[in-house]
Amino acid sequence: MSDERKVQEVLARYVRATDRRDGKVQGALFTDDAVVQIYVKTGADDYEAFGEPLIGGAGVEFAVENFMAPHPEGGSSHHTTFDHIIDVDGDRAHLNAQFVVYAVQASARPADGWPAGVFGAQGTVRPIESGYYDTDLRRVDGEWKIVKHSVLMDMPIAVPEA
Amino acid sequence: MSDERKVQEVLARYVRATDRRDGKVQGALFTDDAVVQIYVKTGADDYEAFGEPLIGGAGVEFAVENFMAPHPEGGSSHHTTFDHIIDVDGDRAHLNAQFVVYAVQASARPADGWPAGVFGAQGTVRPIESGYYDTDLRRVDGEWKIVKHSVLMDMPIAVPEA
Amino acid sequence: MSDERKVQEVLARYVRATDRRDGKVQGALFTDDAVVQIYVKTGADDYEAFGEPLIGGAGVEFAVENFMAPHPEGGSSHHTTFDHIIDVDGDRAHLNAQFVVYAVQASARPADGWPAGVFGAQGTVRPIESGYYDTDLRRVDGEWKIVKHSVLMDMPIAVPEA
Repeated sequence: MSDERKVQEVLARYVRATDRRDGKVQGALFTDDAVVQIYVKTGADDYEAFGEPLIGGAGVEFAVENFMAPHPEGGSSHHTTFDHIIDVDGDRAHLNAQFVVYAVQASARPADGWPAGVFGAQGTVRPIESGYYDTDLRRVDGEWKIVKHSVLMDMPIAVPEA
Repeated sequence: MSDERKVQEVLARYVRATDRRDGKVQGALFTDDAVVQIYVKTGADDYEAFGEPLIGGAGVEFAVENFMAPHPEGGSSHHTTFDHIIDVDGDRAHLNAQFVVYAVQASARPADGWPAGVFGAQGTVRPIESGYYDTDLRRVDGEWKIVKHSVLMDMPIAVPEA
Repeated sequence: MSDERKVQEVLARYVRATDRRDGKVQGALFTDDAVVQIYVKTGADDYEAFGEPLIGGAGVEFAVENFMAPHPEGGSSHHTTFDHIIDVDGDRAHLNAQFVVYAVQASARPADGWPAGVFGAQGTVRPIESGYYDTDLRRVDGEWKIVKHSVLMDMPIAVPEA
């Protein structure tokens, strides 16, 4: 498998772990000294840091398990990535990708079955976030790990009492 | 072309065939003994089989031509896939991908032209389904074919009188 | 890096340049004699040309800088591509991809902060266009450049007084 594909698959595992809220699996994709920072867009080419960086796989694991809202019943999500630009230079790599996040909510089947005339998939799929991932990786013992991960959000983030 | 890319392009042809409702082209991507099964999500990690499996390329072709609703006038769709994880082992391969399905409906141009002030693309693009494809392939006479295809839907599916 | 990936990354740079309205960067992806044509879908397998073709990188640059609407304040977009089918034959290549365009609008933070109970990303992500890119490329001095680019829109396009 080419290094470019290996790098892309790190991100493919990252998004699945995020969507499953699996901090352990997600944390394992990062080095111990990795720096993860969310940025929010403030102008055509401007971003500002949102909150403090997470440090290392342990920081990512803790954040996923403590700060990410669990899915509601029937809920799931898809973090999807597109149009990767990947540069590999020996044991270092850089990846840039577009992302869109979908919130999915399944409808509950009525106790007496679906009404007449209703057919097909029942629920909603809503795009709720978008932006770019900009990511540095390093090959450690033959495996690509994330050493720096910037989440460039197109939108501001509201936090309680902020 | 790498085997990983060849495998990914099988899925790329699959989604185009689905969107065109071209059962013949879609069926040709499967072996004669392929097993295709739709699952619907019933819990965080739980799925249950929806309906009976389709068997082989002939089964897929029949299903596409007889059970998929035709697009309405001005309608089309896009089955899109993301973040592929692909493992090739000799003449066997496994692929996992996220998917989102969009229903597209073009607006009809009014007989007396578009109203003043209206510009740009006229119609709607709506995400309606999502989930994962989990797929096994086998190389047969130099070509990758699908031998097992699981469609893991995030949402339940309503069927008449069910 | 494989030629297939290089070809795919040309499209990855194209979508970023479009979303940034960067005509210079986008134009540089095309040869001087490239032909760019938008088509709109008029039937299940029918398209008709929309407007005149753009010619060459200079034509693309001019169009991006003069005819594409600038993003509103807080606005951005993502042209995203999926399920690429890429054929490389020596110094020629062909690429086909699905695309979906998202319009993103960030909400402005209220002067007195986000209201109580509001959290998460604030704004909207709306799919507004979709279709296929069908693209021919040629290797020129070691770099893949677009020589023909067809944008196959699923929907009609309204223009003032048309």
